[in-house]
Amino acid sequence: MSDNFADRLLEAIARKGSPVCVGLDPAFDKLPDELKTLPPERAFVEFCSAVIEAVANVVPAVKPQIAYFERYGHAGVAAYEQVVHLARQAGLIVIGDVKRNDIGSTAAEYAAGHLGIADGPDAITINGYLGADGIAPFLDVAKANGKGVFVLVRTSNPSAGAIQDFADGSGRKFYEHMAQQVAALGEQPGLVGQQGYSCLGAVVGATWPGEAKALRQIMPRQLFLVPGYGAQGATAKDCAASFKSGGVGAIVNASRSVLYAFRDKAHAGTNWRDAIGQAAKVFAQDIRSAVNH
Amino acid sequence: MSDNFADRLLEAIARKGSPVCVGLDPAFDKLPDELKTLPPERAFVEFCSAVIEAVANVVPAVKPQIAYFERYGHAGVAAYEQVVHLARQAGLIVIGDVKRNDIGSTAAEYAAGHLGIADGPDAITINGYLGADGIAPFLDVAKANGKGVFVLVRTSNPSAGAIQDFADGSGRKFYEHMAQQVAALGEQPGLVGQQGYSCLGAVVGATWPGEAKALRQIMPRQLFLVPGYGAQGATAKDCAASFKSGGVGAIVNASRSVLYAFRDKAHAGTNWRDAIGQAAKVFAQDIRSAVNH
Repeated sequence: MSDNFADRLLEAIARKGSPVCVGLDPAFDKLPDELKTLPPERAFVEFCSAVIEAVANVVPAVKPQIAYFERYGHAGVAAYEQVVHLARQAGLIVIGDVKRNDIGSTAAEYAAGHLGIADGPDAITINGYLGADGIAPFLDVAKANGKGVFVLVRTSNPSAGAIQDFADGSGRKFYEHMAQQVAALGEQPGLVGQQGYSCLGAVVGATWPGEAKALRQIMPRQLFLVPGYGAQGATAKDCAASFKSGGVGAIVNASRSVLYAFRDKAHAGTNWRDAIGQAAKVFAQDIRSAVNH
Repeated sequence: MSDNFADRLLEAIARKGSPVCVGLDPAFDKLPDELKTLPPERAFVEFCSAVIEAVANVVPAVKPQIAYFERYGHAGVAAYEQVVHLARQAGLIVIGDVKRNDIGSTAAEYAAGHLGIADGPDAITINGYLGADGIAPFLDVAKANGKGVFVLVRTSNPSAGAIQDFADGSGRKFYEHMAQQVAALGEQPGLVGQQGYSCLGAVVGATWPGEAKALRQIMPRQLFLVPGYGAQGATAKDCAASFKSGGVGAIVNASRSVLYAFRDKAHAGTNWRDAIGQAAKVFAQDIRSAVNH
């Protein structure tokens, strides 16, 4: 097996048959009642452990969102580390959604902490606002450890456009400029795997399918991490715009629509673990159909 | 005393007489030898505690950089929390340099974790790439708790320009666009203090004095947090561009040039605590002279 992150992720997707990822965003208020007697950080480990077990046969990857853990300080971060460990033990690829960013010397510290440890996440998200010298330290550590990085290019939230659509005189948008930087950085020696994709990927929100199509052209070697499905409003068809023909090149994330499926009337009477497993299957099937269409 | 963050910071600057801040960026390799026998997270608390003691009479604020702590996982984050606590106990304003960012619902988690706790930092830095709905949750929590937020506008690193100088057809730069968004968001009800400044400030690197002058016009109500002095190459004169006439409106940060002053030949024979205190005084004097010029 190749130790390039892009190859590893693509192999995992092929094995599971679905290019999807479940986000681990544990909000204490929304947890099953039986877990609310525990302190938040313990409840999060219990909950995420159950989610991991429920989805491990369905999806190739999970994406723990560190903000939900960090809310509870260092005890929350310890829970995040434990969740990453449990997901890796279950054979899942782990994408730590941390969106870290800083000047080079400081970025090197984040890179060491998040990508430099064997039992840490397989990849993380980062924010590229500081440019190439803020991205380079993450790439260096990723390359040395067979890990990956996804740079925010076009985010899924409502006001993304007010910043990211800023255009130059020729109509080229700022997010396209960011995409070009990512494409160039991702072609550096040692980053592109056997399947032609770089371990430097991009975050491209599913809520903007027109933009995703254009970005697919600018970044042929980037794997797209695609948030926005479900609770944020994007459909499977919207997500399909991030894939190349042949249904390869992206992985779609769903968080709330899977995690909290047990709160949905459609799952009334089903225990929460089964509801999560069923929702993950429906999600995977939905994306598979749209992508292979 | 006003509980608006901008008022609090300006009062603290007036009390100490110097608009400066010392960055707490503890790198294990660079620590005094006597601390290297401790595990990193304990060494960091010892070191930062000594730095706080050495500079508390000279500077109004410190800026712990969480990346250096996060490198050591949850144990490092616990050390960060302790350093924040010690700095507050010493009467210093604490700016947590965390550069967090995400979509609204997730940003609310970061905001609660970093600005929603009484003994946490007085302000944090954030990255505005996701636009207004990613910034709003930080402002909500800051307003409710008398805390502050600094949005990255123009960073101090060498490749900042390749991203942030992207210009529209009229020559307006992307960082100016970001500055306009920050200026507008910072004028919302309840954010501007008695001295006319908003609790929403901006990070403006000292390494680009021409840009800082233009940004000073676009953001009249923003306090500028100015990194880049010393190790990053900016002079006190470069930093002065971020102040309004009268020498108000900004706070300049120095990290490495103060923290590791004891490694400098100029301080040979001085114990490391004294060297740090002396370097902080020289730094404060240097900025004071340039700003009041």
